[in-house]
Amino acid sequence: MESTVNGGAGDKATSTTSNGTAAVDKGVDFANYFCTYAFLYHQKEMLSDRVRMDAYLNSVFKNKHHFIGKTVLDVGTGSGILAIWSAQAGAKKVYAVEATKMAEHARELVKANKLQDVIEVIEGSIEDITLPEKVDVIISEWMGYFLLRESMFDSVICARDRFLKPTGVMYPSHARMWLAPIRSEVTDQKMSEYEECMDDWQGFVTETKSYYGVDMSVLTKPFSEEQKKYYLQNSLWNNLDPNQVVGTATIIKEIDCLTVTVDDIIEVKANVSSTITKVDTRLCGFGGWFDVHFNGRKENPAACAVELTTAPSIYGGTHWGQQVFLLHPPVRVNNGDEILVNFSMSRSEENHRLMNVDLGYEVKLSSGKMLPHVRNKFYIE
Amino acid sequence: MESTVNGGAGDKATSTTSNGTAAVDKGVDFANYFCTYAFLYHQKEMLSDRVRMDAYLNSVFKNKHHFIGKTVLDVGTGSGILAIWSAQAGAKKVYAVEATKMAEHARELVKANKLQDVIEVIEGSIEDITLPEKVDVIISEWMGYFLLRESMFDSVICARDRFLKPTGVMYPSHARMWLAPIRSEVTDQKMSEYEECMDDWQGFVTETKSYYGVDMSVLTKPFSEEQKKYYLQNSLWNNLDPNQVVGTATIIKEIDCLTVTVDDIIEVKANVSSTITKVDTRLCGFGGWFDVHFNGRKENPAACAVELTTAPSIYGGTHWGQQVFLLHPPVRVNNGDEILVNFSMSRSEENHRLMNVDLGYEVKLSSGKMLPHVRNKFYIE
Repeated sequence: MESTVNGGAGDKATSTTSNGTAAVDKGVDFANYFCTYAFLYHQKEMLSDRVRMDAYLNSVFKNKHHFIGKTVLDVGTGSGILAIWSAQAGAKKVYAVEATKMAEHARELVKANKLQDVIEVIEGSIEDITLPEKVDVIISEWMGYFLLRESMFDSVICARDRFLKPTGVMYPSHARMWLAPIRSEVTDQKMSEYEECMDDWQGFVTETKSYYGVDMSVLTKPFSEEQKKYYLQNSLWNNLDPNQVVGTATIIKEIDCLTVTVDDIIEVKANVSSTITKVDTRLCGFGGWFDVHFNGRKENPAACAVELTTAPSIYGGTHWGQQVFLLHPPVRVNNGDEILVNFSMSRSEENHRLMNVDLGYEVKLSSGKMLPHVRNKFYIE
Repeated sequence: MESTVNGGAGDKATSTTSNGTAAVDKGVDFANYFCTYAFLYHQKEMLSDRVRMDAYLNSVFKNKHHFIGKTVLDVGTGSGILAIWSAQAGAKKVYAVEATKMAEHARELVKANKLQDVIEVIEGSIEDITLPEKVDVIISEWMGYFLLRESMFDSVICARDRFLKPTGVMYPSHARMWLAPIRSEVTDQKMSEYEECMDDWQGFVTETKSYYGVDMSVLTKPFSEEQKKYYLQNSLWNNLDPNQVVGTATIIKEIDCLTVTVDDIIEVKANVSSTITKVDTRLCGFGGWFDVHFNGRKENPAACAVELTTAPSIYGGTHWGQQVFLLHPPVRVNNGDEILVNFSMSRSEENHRLMNVDLGYEVKLSSGKMLPHVRNKFYIE
């Protein structure tokens, strides 16, 4: 025995109940998901993301009126940074909730920064804990790859419904998902890797037959499917250069964090169209990213609205990068061609924190001619 | 949020009961452990290990008298290869038990090789299934890194106690764990990586203070402990060159698969001594490996005893490689010096499939002078 992971989380973190919603096994979810956040190394990675840090810092300190004398809840405080900023900005009381052992480090950090009289670190999951009062502000950095991977926003919605005052403010207040056609040489590379892997399998089948007397060829199809998924259907993390975006970016989901429900985000469906903006190029796939906004609320707006975007950037981007869905083979397109996209994303039945994407597209050439409709399945794992 | 794993499984797969034995959460264990074996890619990796394959092939086909007309149980059959060989060698009936979905592929493979009348593939864990009869042979490839990682042998013991006839034979029949002093430049590399990581942390603390107004220095100690564990205390997979072994290898555990109990392997303790065999070299750590033997049993011995060793080899070794426990700093030693080792390995409280190692050593120079005793903790994760 003994083997190493070549990717693809086959982990069973949920069981699907008869009505199709997922019943989460807490122990499995902890093993698969939360454990990562118990490492200071990961906290440091996130705390080193300047775009992320600056956006939250500005959102708090340029909108102190939302914090001065107020009660704040930080959902998934991690090392405690957002709770600390909230306190430094003048909050009267901050509840900092963290499900992992990182809570202990957050407590130390709060004390070292002399804010233990304002910040109360609570180790537990937001679904289980209780608070002695409702809060004026919920602040949280809950965004996963392509916004919704990790499904952590469910916990923020739960926190809002349980603990936010009717007049309360969400930080961030809004979120959007974007999709754009891209070009990328990675599509060729992944296809080569897949083909090489299948060549290697063929050699393996031949050798196993001749050396060991066992005919493995019946497994060629399932092996090929497993490897196709791994090489061609898994979405990829990528920090795209803006130059790689070959057409207009479109919004596929808008979320008002004050009113959205879990039902609203459990599936994302969009029919959008994008126009190619580059001359004679290749459509190699689609890039997906998100932005969030700190606008306060209508009745109590931000003094200074702040945006955190994870769009392709010449400045190097964020630790979220973009999620890239590659096409095999790519399609030659031209300035003015239109790409009609039929996008749908839902949670993996086996692990509610991972996503399945169904991405159909048609190319309408500027000549008016339609290329055939193509559908692809992808996995955000 | 979103972070990537830099190593160290903090996964909680077991809870410890009051008597110190681990109660395994099956769902978590599946998510953490079994899922890996559901990928054909991993099966292929194991099936491509020539040393492993040849040993099992020879053990079966050079000892057909153990198989002809007999009933066989294959524990953790994976793709089904050992069950197929057992049938090809003449077994009357083979029960091939597999806990993961790989059972479906095993069933296809059995059919494609026209052995469905002999081999019955059963999807389930050995602890849960029942068989209609006792068996003459239990065959299994249960060995993890350094033999006992994965703790899969527990299931083989369970199978033996439940299903082996009193006259039955175990394949393999015996196993041994080895330890030897080694030299390796990786010890310097790991220390550099650790130091670099801590330098980086210091820069991070300074920047977080000046840019973001938060003093992180209180986390320097826990961060350093986390990174020390990651860089310096995790044992490493390595295929050592025999030249890197600088002293005599010693056996630290001998197992008779026919009689051993889980209590016998839950902890491995040994006081051994090794003599340095190289002139003026460095003791950089210890390498651990194992061998297993196919000897049949005393009353029914193998016609041709076969050995499978994972010792350092000029022929490139096995997919198990060796587990390396590195010392920081290394110690200069010379031909004739004696290394007295106090070795202890037990299961991680958080995941019974991972191991904690306590390794103490003293160097007795050939002059008679003793260097001070040093103790190290390691993690096999």
